[in-house]
Amino acid sequence: MIYADNAATTRMSDAAIHTMTVLMKEAWGNPSSLYTHGQNAKEILEQARKDVAEVIGADPSEIIFTSGGSEADNQAIRSAAALGRTKGKMHIISTAFEHHAVLHTLEALAKEGFEITLLDVHANGIVLPEEVEAAIREDTCLVTIMAANNEIGTIQPIREIGAICRSKNILFHTDAVQAIAHIPVNVSEDHIDLLSASAHKFHGPKGVGFLYARKGVRLTNLIEGGAQERGKRAGTENIPGIASMAAALKETYAGMAENAARLTVLRDRLIHGLQQIPHSALNGDALRRLPGNVNFCFEGIEGESLLLLLDDKGICASSGSACTSGSLDPSHVLLAIGRVHDVAHGSLRLSLGEDATEEDVDYIIKSVGEVVGYLRGFSPIWRDLMSGKKEFIL
Amino acid sequence: MIYADNAATTRMSDAAIHTMTVLMKEAWGNPSSLYTHGQNAKEILEQARKDVAEVIGADPSEIIFTSGGSEADNQAIRSAAALGRTKGKMHIISTAFEHHAVLHTLEALAKEGFEITLLDVHANGIVLPEEVEAAIREDTCLVTIMAANNEIGTIQPIREIGAICRSKNILFHTDAVQAIAHIPVNVSEDHIDLLSASAHKFHGPKGVGFLYARKGVRLTNLIEGGAQERGKRAGTENIPGIASMAAALKETYAGMAENAARLTVLRDRLIHGLQQIPHSALNGDALRRLPGNVNFCFEGIEGESLLLLLDDKGICASSGSACTSGSLDPSHVLLAIGRVHDVAHGSLRLSLGEDATEEDVDYIIKSVGEVVGYLRGFSPIWRDLMSGKKEFIL
Repeated sequence: MIYADNAATTRMSDAAIHTMTVLMKEAWGNPSSLYTHGQNAKEILEQARKDVAEVIGADPSEIIFTSGGSEADNQAIRSAAALGRTKGKMHIISTAFEHHAVLHTLEALAKEGFEITLLDVHANGIVLPEEVEAAIREDTCLVTIMAANNEIGTIQPIREIGAICRSKNILFHTDAVQAIAHIPVNVSEDHIDLLSASAHKFHGPKGVGFLYARKGVRLTNLIEGGAQERGKRAGTENIPGIASMAAALKETYAGMAENAARLTVLRDRLIHGLQQIPHSALNGDALRRLPGNVNFCFEGIEGESLLLLLDDKGICASSGSACTSGSLDPSHVLLAIGRVHDVAHGSLRLSLGEDATEEDVDYIIKSVGEVVGYLRGFSPIWRDLMSGKKEFIL
Repeated sequence: MIYADNAATTRMSDAAIHTMTVLMKEAWGNPSSLYTHGQNAKEILEQARKDVAEVIGADPSEIIFTSGGSEADNQAIRSAAALGRTKGKMHIISTAFEHHAVLHTLEALAKEGFEITLLDVHANGIVLPEEVEAAIREDTCLVTIMAANNEIGTIQPIREIGAICRSKNILFHTDAVQAIAHIPVNVSEDHIDLLSASAHKFHGPKGVGFLYARKGVRLTNLIEGGAQERGKRAGTENIPGIASMAAALKETYAGMAENAARLTVLRDRLIHGLQQIPHSALNGDALRRLPGNVNFCFEGIEGESLLLLLDDKGICASSGSACTSGSLDPSHVLLAIGRVHDVAHGSLRLSLGEDATEEDVDYIIKSVGEVVGYLRGFSPIWRDLMSGKKEFIL
């Protein structure tokens, strides 16, 4: 199996598995309990908090553990909105190609009276800082823009955007789920007030994530109850999961620079190979994208069939976000960068993991070429394109 | 170590550990992905849903997996409130001794315009169905009453309460976090519309729980985002954790009747032993309580010192809920059953696990006796009580 869907989820690292295996047997105490067995669990929890904070340049007191990136996104945005409301500032700036955890939260806030501006991300899938600045109003309370897109992998200029927001005293949240431990993110240098991350995107376990909230940014509770996480996130802490996340984060972050350099070469080899397929196009900027991310549209085919045939060849890939699979709508990300419906339907996302090899890449290139050719062989749209009934777009 | 704090959290069972160990290595695929590796994870997810549903007499489609009991409580109550609001019904009935995940959610709803009636639970810690019925108004949208209390273990007449609610067409939610797999709970026979549960209370992993919502009861999203869990709970599903929960639930439930019978004998032996300590009193009904739960007040001492000295003797116990530790306020549960502040401060909760033995119980009795005597030896309150300056309450 060649697993090329690391943007959907990643294999747990050996360190993450080891930590989980040991701690679920040994550190199952409740960290809120006074006795030694509980306090031992508490120590592990606080060490994990330090480890996570260090990677993103935060103070441990600024980290809240959550059940994942979606929860962190929801809580970050709801918190900023609640703060905005108290000041009569009910305008939020975001982009059209955010993750649904952000977009659907913004839709809910729109129903509650907030005004949402979704910025254009242009054909290259990158938002322009000057357009963020131009969109800022007197009543803007939050700018929420992802660090890297989950489908096309384009890296956003969050440092510039963060600086603009900080200078105007507006909260800046970034959904860094795809970015953390894959590209450098530093909450201090990037002027980030709120940041969301998910363990299973960097070889940690599922069901765990974290929210960074800069000191002084008051969080609203999404889950009410016990006094865990400084009273900001109720529920008995998942110590084995949290410590396993911290282990994965440290490990993946330590290898980040080296892996990124190696993956960038493989990514570009893959892009170059797939560009040889006629009537295909890379989605998103060719350079300003995650080291392992490749996203293509192939005219005249359906992404779903492509995935199933690649699966037969032992390749795990996706057409877009895993979170929206089952939906017949084309990707909102591809539409946001200007792809028309027909073309957006024939999309393929390949996200390479740290263990990817040149042989994997060459096998993927060969397989995709074969499958695209095969599917076009009996595609009515392709027939119309070839006969001139329909015009090629790509 | 004698672990007598199973109401705070439980040791993961061998089956739960085994499932987690195997699946975190093998079933780490994203169940939303189309390829085989993802679909295998999806199958495991749906089998877990069937297993969980079967234990509580539900249909698999009625189960939503969450990050734990607190999240499930929040979502259940918020959903019922949202439904009530659309019908202009904004009155909710609950009790004064619910878990904070329920009480704090109700407090938030009160700020949003809901009216909350908190019923008395009387000296025995049990709410009367006729008082629930009497509290129901034209505008009542929800009754939320826990199946068993997390501190004093008293079992509530949820079947009678459920029948009353069903006959009046009012939604009934029960926080069954302490009850599931410890006493029989059946959503059909008990007329339950919404139910919350947490894996780590029945030997499953932390960070996982579930919400049962009867068919036709429309859920409001607490976490917005992807289309997971029928669009009702966003976030990549924690397959290893969920399957591990299902394994623990099946196993604990299979042994429930036998364990309950054995634990009840041990519990009563422990109660009898502790009653020999002068000026002590059992909290909550002596019979209608969870098989492993014992909760006492000892006059003239502080619960915290008691716990630390018991820890020195290798006994893990708590003074009340682990979720509120760190707070200096006495337990809201003990206040609700009429204990005065001074007495409520000297409380001890012992919650026996399935592996408890008669020797454990006898050692606990002996140790608590010694520690209580020792602490009273230099307690100024005890001196005042003995000298007659203060009157004994217990």
